[in-house]
Amino acid sequence: MDAEQFRQRGREMIDYVADYLENIRTRQPYPDVKPGYLRQLIPEHAPESPEAWDDLFKDIERVIMPGVTHWHSPHFHAYYPTANSYPAILADVLSAAIGCIGFTWASSPACTELEVVTLDWLGKMLDLPPDFLSCSGGKGGGVIQGTASEATLVALLSARTMFLNKVKKDDPDMENGVIMSKFVAYMSDQAHSSVERAGLIAAIKMRKLETDDKCALRGHTLEEAIENDKAKGLIPIFVCATLGTTPSCAFDCLPEIGPICEKEGIWLHVDAAYAGSAFICPEFRPLLNGVEYAMSFNFNPHKWLRVNFDCSTMWVKDSTLISDAFNVDPLYLKHENQGHVMPDYRHWHIPLGRRFRSLKLWFVLRLYGQNCLQECIRKDVRLAHEFKTFVLADERFELFGEVTLGLVCFRLKGSDEVNEKLLKAVNDDRRIHIVPSHAKGKYFLRFAVCAAQTSSEDTHFAWKVISETADSILKEE
Amino acid sequence: MDAEQFRQRGREMIDYVADYLENIRTRQPYPDVKPGYLRQLIPEHAPESPEAWDDLFKDIERVIMPGVTHWHSPHFHAYYPTANSYPAILADVLSAAIGCIGFTWASSPACTELEVVTLDWLGKMLDLPPDFLSCSGGKGGGVIQGTASEATLVALLSARTMFLNKVKKDDPDMENGVIMSKFVAYMSDQAHSSVERAGLIAAIKMRKLETDDKCALRGHTLEEAIENDKAKGLIPIFVCATLGTTPSCAFDCLPEIGPICEKEGIWLHVDAAYAGSAFICPEFRPLLNGVEYAMSFNFNPHKWLRVNFDCSTMWVKDSTLISDAFNVDPLYLKHENQGHVMPDYRHWHIPLGRRFRSLKLWFVLRLYGQNCLQECIRKDVRLAHEFKTFVLADERFELFGEVTLGLVCFRLKGSDEVNEKLLKAVNDDRRIHIVPSHAKGKYFLRFAVCAAQTSSEDTHFAWKVISETADSILKEE
Repeated sequence: MDAEQFRQRGREMIDYVADYLENIRTRQPYPDVKPGYLRQLIPEHAPESPEAWDDLFKDIERVIMPGVTHWHSPHFHAYYPTANSYPAILADVLSAAIGCIGFTWASSPACTELEVVTLDWLGKMLDLPPDFLSCSGGKGGGVIQGTASEATLVALLSARTMFLNKVKKDDPDMENGVIMSKFVAYMSDQAHSSVERAGLIAAIKMRKLETDDKCALRGHTLEEAIENDKAKGLIPIFVCATLGTTPSCAFDCLPEIGPICEKEGIWLHVDAAYAGSAFICPEFRPLLNGVEYAMSFNFNPHKWLRVNFDCSTMWVKDSTLISDAFNVDPLYLKHENQGHVMPDYRHWHIPLGRRFRSLKLWFVLRLYGQNCLQECIRKDVRLAHEFKTFVLADERFELFGEVTLGLVCFRLKGSDEVNEKLLKAVNDDRRIHIVPSHAKGKYFLRFAVCAAQTSSEDTHFAWKVISETADSILKEE
Repeated sequence: MDAEQFRQRGREMIDYVADYLENIRTRQPYPDVKPGYLRQLIPEHAPESPEAWDDLFKDIERVIMPGVTHWHSPHFHAYYPTANSYPAILADVLSAAIGCIGFTWASSPACTELEVVTLDWLGKMLDLPPDFLSCSGGKGGGVIQGTASEATLVALLSARTMFLNKVKKDDPDMENGVIMSKFVAYMSDQAHSSVERAGLIAAIKMRKLETDDKCALRGHTLEEAIENDKAKGLIPIFVCATLGTTPSCAFDCLPEIGPICEKEGIWLHVDAAYAGSAFICPEFRPLLNGVEYAMSFNFNPHKWLRVNFDCSTMWVKDSTLISDAFNVDPLYLKHENQGHVMPDYRHWHIPLGRRFRSLKLWFVLRLYGQNCLQECIRKDVRLAHEFKTFVLADERFELFGEVTLGLVCFRLKGSDEVNEKLLKAVNDDRRIHIVPSHAKGKYFLRFAVCAAQTSSEDTHFAWKVISETADSILKEE
């Protein structure tokens, strides 16, 4: 494909994408295919010679679309939202064309510097404490990670190195593995599976602490766990507090947890993967109170801030503690301007290579502006509250937990089994798509406001589907 | 930005990208900016209200381009290539529009299934042993990782879990950390920094083994290291063999290393990040001989196979050993078709979320076809050999190592200092961009054939620049 063909095919693809997103309402949110469907639709080998564009282009509808779960359908209410916007798509085209690998400042200065500055912009929008910002001139700053899973792992590994160094100061000959077997980290029983996974990878004991009746981790629970572990000769090194848990969008009590971590010298990481985007609205910012005690904070603009995956933004107060965990320095990556003024981001995360991802953050922040982004968040929260009123108005149903942002957890009053039946029937019906969760011994359904296009009509429609399906389920019972 | 505006702006961006890549030859490969340049060019805060597209679009040339290292300039010869192609860019537009997060099969079946099938296609193109392919019906299969760093880490973590389970069978109460302090892994002294980093993250002792005069790890060196460690009571668990090292494109001796790993039951991981793409050519496939002994194999189509970053393809013989290292299974990710026929890729890598990356592999394989991709590789290797003849014809210079693929390592006969001066002067001149390396006690310069557009004229031009610069350096001396 030469440049002229690219101009033509590029237009076709842009139009296809505009058509797809404009008409996504007409597509079934969850596909009908069975595992293995795709292999039967395409050859067993890559072609020897180039194929025609038209043959490939036709296959998008023939091969791909029948197996797509349409996350941007207004009838998709599963998991949490993933962001998508025209400005972010265009920025990614530019990023792909530049196609630099930004592992060091020198490998593409603009790639590093735009990231530093846009992370300051976004940090200011969230009213993060200044010591998280690069513009404050200290050791703090932001970085784009691929996912919240990686941010949690990076924070845990940094805490591990910090404490290994502390212990080794007194006892330099002690084996790392032996020291690490004394380390312990904490999360709530509602934290995301990736936190437990970070513990597996870092080989650090992870305690799942019990939450209160609002599914929140409280200070006294943490304090007790720390005391118990210290009494056993263990060394508490890390707490991951979640703001907006995946099962039910609960908020750990940061103002209680923070001071305990500070007192004990424990690394506090705050994971606000979904909820973080809402903190750009002053009315939701109080949910972030206590972040001043954290060593690291992370949320996903790629969930709820119109920046396409992957853009998981993480801020740290002391970036030297991050790079200590990763620093290995070969000659072919050394450069004249190393470590001065601007970071070498390769020391801030797991992969070495990285795309020019700040472009999409920059495009989105400028083409939406803060006000419009705030309105996007508020619209989704309004719709969740609207859905909540439907649940409350139907005496067959009950809420699970509180509705704070764009997620409503609900269930039929009665057994888990009847709710499992309801979930299956709603998804088998195929008009909307939702997923279940489980907490405090109860199985429930999650209604998340996901797509940018989701409107009040869609909320009504979703409730109609659920309510009708409940009718038949309860009739059967 | 609505769909109509996207159609218009999308065309503008496509044209900008075509113009950029068509005229990239006119841009200086390495920028003139100093660290901190960008902050002065843009406001301190994100805008309150939406900005006009035209203002943003103008800023691409005003703010971004002055700080870009142009990896796709035919005068860029630093590091190793990173791939870029029109088909891959278009596929990424589609991927962004679909915007699914493919953590489970159910979260978007097409995203998982196209990956399974295209990895089989690519594996067949490389003539990988069938037990690495999903279509063979065993436990093997391929997955797209973000980077080779992650692939190495995933392999090492899987080996760690495999051996932890073995030890715990006999001694279930032993602490993981204590067991891990007995584990040891091996790499050559030429392996990429990310291998050492994987050891840091996984908390596994990494031995850098000495290489022969061709910078290759040999069987007897590995054997000796294993014997020494076993004598100390340590447990060898993992070897990372590199095909095409970063410093000098050397090849570890896989046919010697493989049988030793097999005999000892050690996990052999083969990292062919750069060189792997060449194995689609029958004349380079012998370099991969011995891969039949490996548990995992990885290379980066995003380096040299026209697929834009990130697309690092990894194959494993037993995927259950990979998922054992990561499996944590919350309810909100369970689905009816779990684990049957098709994998849940979230168990195969560090992040939970993932983009629909196989689309770009599919577009590239179909729109180029195997033959054209082979020709791309052969063109670059020819150019490297051409550059080698220039070096050999100039008695002031000597080669370092052999030219096997698209990298030529060379130096002025004489001190490291004079070569450091040459490197700095060539880069300060700004007409071409290269980076140095260091091995076997010698500092040398690396000339990599990187851009798709690089031609014989560019090789001549690069040599002219280097030769002229050497003239002035040597005159000064």
